[in-house]
Amino acid sequence: MHFRAGFLYTFPLKRHTEGMGIKTIEFKSQPRIVSGAAIAGPKECVGVVGKYVDRALADDTFGESTYEKAECKMLTFAIAKAMEKGGVSEADTDMLISGDLLNQIISASFAARDYDFPFLGVYGACSTMAESMALAAMSIDGGYAKRVVAATGSHFSTAERQYRYPLELGNTRPPQSQWTVTGAGGVLIADKGCTAESVAITSATFGRVVDYGITDVNNMGAAMAPAAADTIIRHLKDRGMSPSDYDLILTGDLGALGSRILKDLTWEKGVDIAKNHVDCGEIVYNVVEDEFQGGSGAGCSAVVFSSYILDKIKKRRLNKVLFVATGALLSTISSAQGESIPCIAHAVSVENV
Amino acid sequence: MHFRAGFLYTFPLKRHTEGMGIKTIEFKSQPRIVSGAAIAGPKECVGVVGKYVDRALADDTFGESTYEKAECKMLTFAIAKAMEKGGVSEADTDMLISGDLLNQIISASFAARDYDFPFLGVYGACSTMAESMALAAMSIDGGYAKRVVAATGSHFSTAERQYRYPLELGNTRPPQSQWTVTGAGGVLIADKGCTAESVAITSATFGRVVDYGITDVNNMGAAMAPAAADTIIRHLKDRGMSPSDYDLILTGDLGALGSRILKDLTWEKGVDIAKNHVDCGEIVYNVVEDEFQGGSGAGCSAVVFSSYILDKIKKRRLNKVLFVATGALLSTISSAQGESIPCIAHAVSVENV
Repeated sequence: MHFRAGFLYTFPLKRHTEGMGIKTIEFKSQPRIVSGAAIAGPKECVGVVGKYVDRALADDTFGESTYEKAECKMLTFAIAKAMEKGGVSEADTDMLISGDLLNQIISASFAARDYDFPFLGVYGACSTMAESMALAAMSIDGGYAKRVVAATGSHFSTAERQYRYPLELGNTRPPQSQWTVTGAGGVLIADKGCTAESVAITSATFGRVVDYGITDVNNMGAAMAPAAADTIIRHLKDRGMSPSDYDLILTGDLGALGSRILKDLTWEKGVDIAKNHVDCGEIVYNVVEDEFQGGSGAGCSAVVFSSYILDKIKKRRLNKVLFVATGALLSTISSAQGESIPCIAHAVSVENV
Repeated sequence: MHFRAGFLYTFPLKRHTEGMGIKTIEFKSQPRIVSGAAIAGPKECVGVVGKYVDRALADDTFGESTYEKAECKMLTFAIAKAMEKGGVSEADTDMLISGDLLNQIISASFAARDYDFPFLGVYGACSTMAESMALAAMSIDGGYAKRVVAATGSHFSTAERQYRYPLELGNTRPPQSQWTVTGAGGVLIADKGCTAESVAITSATFGRVVDYGITDVNNMGAAMAPAAADTIIRHLKDRGMSPSDYDLILTGDLGALGSRILKDLTWEKGVDIAKNHVDCGEIVYNVVEDEFQGGSGAGCSAVVFSSYILDKIKKRRLNKVLFVATGALLSTISSAQGESIPCIAHAVSVENV
C-alpha cells in the first residue's frame, strides 16, 4: 500500500511546462565505466559501503591539518584510485570533470592542480556526481575524448562550518536533518574501444531547476524531492520506459523523508517507483542517531554509487540502474536573504550491455 | 621591442608535461553564435562597452534590495535578451549553461529557476564564459542539442563582500588590484541548420590547472597569466597555428600587469602574441582610478565579448578571434589556510565561416 508522507509544502514557485528543453540523451557509443573508486570516513564505513570502499579512514582528518585539506585529499585519492584500478596512467587520461560543495569548489580545483590533463569544474551541489558522469559520457560519445575521470566528494566537518554552524558550538540538530557524508568517489569512463568492460552509461537526463518554496535549510530532502521527481518522470517518458524497466532507481541524498516525498510525488503523476527505488542517503548509515533522515552531501551518492552499487552492477546482481543525483542550489547568503531552495537532479542510466 | 614585466614569481608548483590530456577540439559542424546580449553598470558603461551593451544601468542595484539579487537579475536579463535577439522562445531553447563567482553559483542557479529547460551549472571562476561556450558548442556539435544559452556575470559589490572586505570599511586597494566588473553577458549558440548566422565556434581548448605559487589575493593578474599562457600555447600547437593567424587573442581579465606577464611568458616559449593580444580587463575601464590594473570578474570577459567584440566579429571588422577566459580558483578559506592560487584558462576560437 502506498504510504503518504504528509508533504510539507503546497505549490511549486513555477509550474514547469512538460516537454521543454533538451531531451534525454541516448549515447549511441555507450561509453563504459571502466572502474570506480571510493574512500569514506569512519562513521560511513560502519555502514553498507564499509566493505566496498578502497580505503576506510580511521581518522577523518586523513592526516591533514584542516578538514578542507582532508576533503581535497580524499577526492584526490578517489581520482587516482579510479585511474589505477582502470589501469590507466596520467598520460592516458584526457580530462577530469569534478566539483564539490565548498565555496568555489576548492577541493576539485586543488585536486586538479596535481594533474597534467585539463579540468572542467562543475557545480551541481550534491548532484555533481551524475552531472560529471553525464558530461564525461557526452565528451566520449561525441568523439572528443577517450578517457575521462568524473569524481566528487564531501566532508561532514567542512560542510557544517560552511553551511551551518561551527562544530564547536554543539548545536542541536532537528529531526528532519541529514548528515553530510565524509567521503569521495570517482569513476573512470572510457570509449568502448579502450576497454573490455561491459558496464556502460547508456543515457543522461539533465535536470531543470525546481523550487517548491521550501526555506528550511535543515530539510533538504523535502526541497530536493520535487527535482528528483521531475527528472525521473522526464527520463522515463523520453525513453518510453516504466519504473520496472530498471532494476534500481537510485537517488542521491534525499534521505528517509525526502525519499517518501519522492514516492508520493511520482505516484501522484501515475508513476509508481516504490518497488525499485532506493536513496543513497537513506541507506548509507546503519546507526540512526544524529543522522536522523540519513546521509547527504556530494560524497553521499558518489561513495555509494562508486563502491557498493557499481560492485553490484559489475557482478551483474544489478543490470540496469538509473542513477539520479540530487542537489540543493542554495547558499548561506541566499537563505539569509529570505530565498527558498532551488533544486536540481541529473540522471544517468548505467547498464550492463 | 619586447618589454619585460618584471615577473613576481619564480617557479610553477608543478611543471606540466607537454602533450598530456585532451587536445583542442575542432567542431566539425561549427556551431553558430546566433546572438549576444550584455548589460553593465554605470562605471562600466563609461568605457568601451557603453555603446554596445543592450542595457546600461544607471543604478547598480538594478532596483533590487540586495546586490546579490541585482547580480542575478542582470544575468537573467542577459540570458533573456540573448534568446530574444536570437529570435527564439523558451520552447525553442534546449539548455542553459552558466555559473558565476558567488558561493554555490547562486546567481546562475536562481536565474535558471525561471526557465523550463535544463540547467548545467559550471564553475570556472572568471573563465566561466569560455567554459560555458565550449560546453555549449560541444553539446551542439555532438548532436545532443540545437540551441543552448551560455552566460555569466559578476557584480563589484557582491564580489567585494564575499572575497575581500565589506564595502563599508572603505579599505585601501593596493596598486596591483583590479576592479570586479558589474555586468552580465550571454550568447545563444545554435546548430548551423537553425540559423543563417556566419559567426561560429570552430574549436575549444580546455584548460589545465596551473599554479605558480602566487599567494597575493590582490594580484590575480599575475596568478592567472601562466594559465592563459599554457592554454594559448597548447591551442596554437594543437591547431598548428601561429598568433598572427588570429586577428585577436582576447584574454578575460588579466588586467594590465597580468597582460604584460602573459606576453613575457609566451615570448619566453617562442610565441610572440604582443601584436594581436588584448585583455578584456585592460580595456574595459576608461578612467584609471581605483581600478588600477583594470577590470576582473566573470562579467568582465562576458560583457566585453558579448557586446563590443561580438559586434566587431558580426560586422567582419574581426574575423578570427581566440577568446581565452581566465579564472582564479581560490576561495577565502583556501587563502586563509595559506594556499596559493590555482588558475585555469579555457579557450574558444570564434570565426566568421
